[in-house]
Amino acid sequence: MYDIVVIGSGPGGYVAAIRASQLGFKTAVVEKAELGGICLNWGCIPTKALLKSAQALKYAEHAKDYGFSIDGQVKFDIADIVARSRGVSATMSKGIEFLFKKNKIDVIKGTAEIVSKGVINVKAEDGSVSAVEAKNIIVATGSRPNSLPFAPIDGKRIISYRQALVPETLPETLAVIGSGAIGSELAFFYSSLGVKVVLIEYLPQILPLEDEDTAAQISRSFKKIGMKIMTSAQVMSVDVSGEKCVLAVKTKKGEETVEADRVLSAVGVVPNTDGIGLENAGVVTERGRIKVDANYKAADGIYAIGDVIATPALAHVASAEAIACVEGIAGLDPEPVDYNNIPACTYVSPEVASVGYTEKALKEKGMDYKAGKFPFTASGKAVAAGERDGFVKLLVDPATDRILGAHLVGANVTEMLSGIVLARKVGATAKDIIKAVHPHPTMSEAIMEAASAVHDEAIHM
Amino acid sequence: MYDIVVIGSGPGGYVAAIRASQLGFKTAVVEKAELGGICLNWGCIPTKALLKSAQALKYAEHAKDYGFSIDGQVKFDIADIVARSRGVSATMSKGIEFLFKKNKIDVIKGTAEIVSKGVINVKAEDGSVSAVEAKNIIVATGSRPNSLPFAPIDGKRIISYRQALVPETLPETLAVIGSGAIGSELAFFYSSLGVKVVLIEYLPQILPLEDEDTAAQISRSFKKIGMKIMTSAQVMSVDVSGEKCVLAVKTKKGEETVEADRVLSAVGVVPNTDGIGLENAGVVTERGRIKVDANYKAADGIYAIGDVIATPALAHVASAEAIACVEGIAGLDPEPVDYNNIPACTYVSPEVASVGYTEKALKEKGMDYKAGKFPFTASGKAVAAGERDGFVKLLVDPATDRILGAHLVGANVTEMLSGIVLARKVGATAKDIIKAVHPHPTMSEAIMEAASAVHDEAIHM
Repeated sequence: MYDIVVIGSGPGGYVAAIRASQLGFKTAVVEKAELGGICLNWGCIPTKALLKSAQALKYAEHAKDYGFSIDGQVKFDIADIVARSRGVSATMSKGIEFLFKKNKIDVIKGTAEIVSKGVINVKAEDGSVSAVEAKNIIVATGSRPNSLPFAPIDGKRIISYRQALVPETLPETLAVIGSGAIGSELAFFYSSLGVKVVLIEYLPQILPLEDEDTAAQISRSFKKIGMKIMTSAQVMSVDVSGEKCVLAVKTKKGEETVEADRVLSAVGVVPNTDGIGLENAGVVTERGRIKVDANYKAADGIYAIGDVIATPALAHVASAEAIACVEGIAGLDPEPVDYNNIPACTYVSPEVASVGYTEKALKEKGMDYKAGKFPFTASGKAVAAGERDGFVKLLVDPATDRILGAHLVGANVTEMLSGIVLARKVGATAKDIIKAVHPHPTMSEAIMEAASAVHDEAIHM
Repeated sequence: MYDIVVIGSGPGGYVAAIRASQLGFKTAVVEKAELGGICLNWGCIPTKALLKSAQALKYAEHAKDYGFSIDGQVKFDIADIVARSRGVSATMSKGIEFLFKKNKIDVIKGTAEIVSKGVINVKAEDGSVSAVEAKNIIVATGSRPNSLPFAPIDGKRIISYRQALVPETLPETLAVIGSGAIGSELAFFYSSLGVKVVLIEYLPQILPLEDEDTAAQISRSFKKIGMKIMTSAQVMSVDVSGEKCVLAVKTKKGEETVEADRVLSAVGVVPNTDGIGLENAGVVTERGRIKVDANYKAADGIYAIGDVIATPALAHVASAEAIACVEGIAGLDPEPVDYNNIPACTYVSPEVASVGYTEKALKEKGMDYKAGKFPFTASGKAVAAGERDGFVKLLVDPATDRILGAHLVGANVTEMLSGIVLARKVGATAKDIIKAVHPHPTMSEAIMEAASAVHDEAIHM
């Protein structure tokens, strides 16, 4: 009998298991695939590895911009780039194995099905089934790619991120449906390697969750590297019967035809809540997502975290929920996860990092705000680094001087964001940011300048 | 008659002038050389440009690590790398010219001498002298390289950062005396370009102001790229009479001889407080530095900021003092600069970023603390980026849970530091950091993990 059994070992599940073990619970994890889940093996981590290759390649291809030259050809074999990425995932997955051992967490390999409160059947690869008993079950089974009904993912012509991460060859042309983080990052990666990419977005802007200024900047950057962007564009059909995939796309101008060798479907994710016996334990789902209370409790003795519940499907959200959930089970009265202060990053070039409200959201809510924006063209470090694209925009409450929203586009802005999340958490004001001495020369000074711009005190513009 | 005349247009002077203009003062700046001072023209900015070239070059040279290859030779001409760097400085200097125009600040070219309270004589290049009258004078004349008495800088064999930034040729071997930020950055740059570098430090560790763990990590990294490091090593003499420069260095093992084609003297800076007529206005100096009160007032109507006063000789300190000084003149009762919360960065690879106390300083002061350290080897983003070297170490007050010191070594840590400065400013606790949801996957998560380690809650180690 375990105190806690976690189903799924992604950034929700493995964090829950480790925290549980730290708090003295006898803990096991059930996993049917690679340890670390999608994030480590088919998501956040392998994409970042691919994108690093693209970045390094860019430096070589643009050698002249940095004062050196290459007497010969810059070449790559997609197999090598993919192999590096798989190696990174394998390393991180082994790291999770190590952490499980170190924390004395049992790993049960197989597919879990809840048979009743406190009992899980695990079906191993060889077909054998064993029953696992647990005082508490945490469902952290994550999500899988969504699929358009008229364009089912076949893994060959119409692919999801899974296949897009491990191409055996590069297509000449790629159509990407959906321009959220996944679609945009993979579109950028393929485009960086010379593939002709068309990025198709149903909504009026790419990166639909981001601020309009962010979308405009990234659109410019994407177009600069040769990507074609279609917004307010609805894919009506995908015909894979011929040599090329043929997409019928409805735009404001009428119906257009897009031809591509492959189609990446990046239209969101669906939670893995089917076939795991939720109904046997009285767990209720709504549009596929598990209903939970403020402590992530789904039913007596059953909890759910991460992509299976109706909160943002992000690794760091799952991890935060994991800790809050387990600390709650331990009776520690944990601080609730603040869903108004969840950062989001997109690792294209320039990078995108944001937290809080967009300008549009503030306008829609009728909330008063003052914007301060500072462009990286005016940053010494950005100019020295040859990274002038982008800006920092802060949206500040005029009454409290606190930060309602932050929108950063630029090199390494993803590494600057956590400071703003913390600022929002503790109620730091724009004035506090201005008066905190920012190190020079850094691109992070742009945060201070944007805060200064809110108060009409920016120095460098 | 100006309200404010600033002598010097570096990061102290130009910021003072712009803030003064914003506050409605009639303002002028006197500058004898390039607008932007040492920082923009001979310091922070051109070094970062050179280091960017070194970084880009490294990506090309290590192409295989990222999954691509170069069919040919990676070549560089130091003239091209220097030209890029000079171009960056020129761009930024023009930016200051633009800001002066935009803010209606008069620029008076020439060398200033205070003749009495409120009167400055400016000697132009053609020898003509004009008197400038000012209600308030701000002295922001900065500093110049220090020189060892037995090894005067001749600009050819024994050079300072000025010559080191614009080499016409690369030496085969370079001895660097002094391993502070300037010495370490330039040693790293030359070493990255294939120069055999010996870094000689008088104190027991390189980067003497940094935490011991930081110095140990950077020593390892420097040695890995082939640099030779000598610590507790006192240069006794430098003989430049022969073909090679010959340094006699006293170490614990006895006297050693170091031969090098060139010697970079990086033994600190001396304030530019001589020959500018300070004595004519009743300004008092102590060991070359101007004595000021808490409002940077040196005498009636005369203020001093930046490297000429006895505060840390850093660009961002000068800028912060500039703003506080001018706001004080305007009667705004500005928040004083918190000298216990000044960040410091060194742009070698991996980068170094720190703020607050070192462990050694806390021990010496007998202050209680708890340390939390997280290595980048355990960070998914670091592994994906191939940037595993380094760590985040937080030193926390057990009584208040506030951050006494932060020591970061790793890729892009200089961009993460401002968040910790702000945290310290507003009194955020390690618990606050733990509970602020850090975006995944970023290297900044290591800050959250280090804070968790303080509370024995780190997940990924």
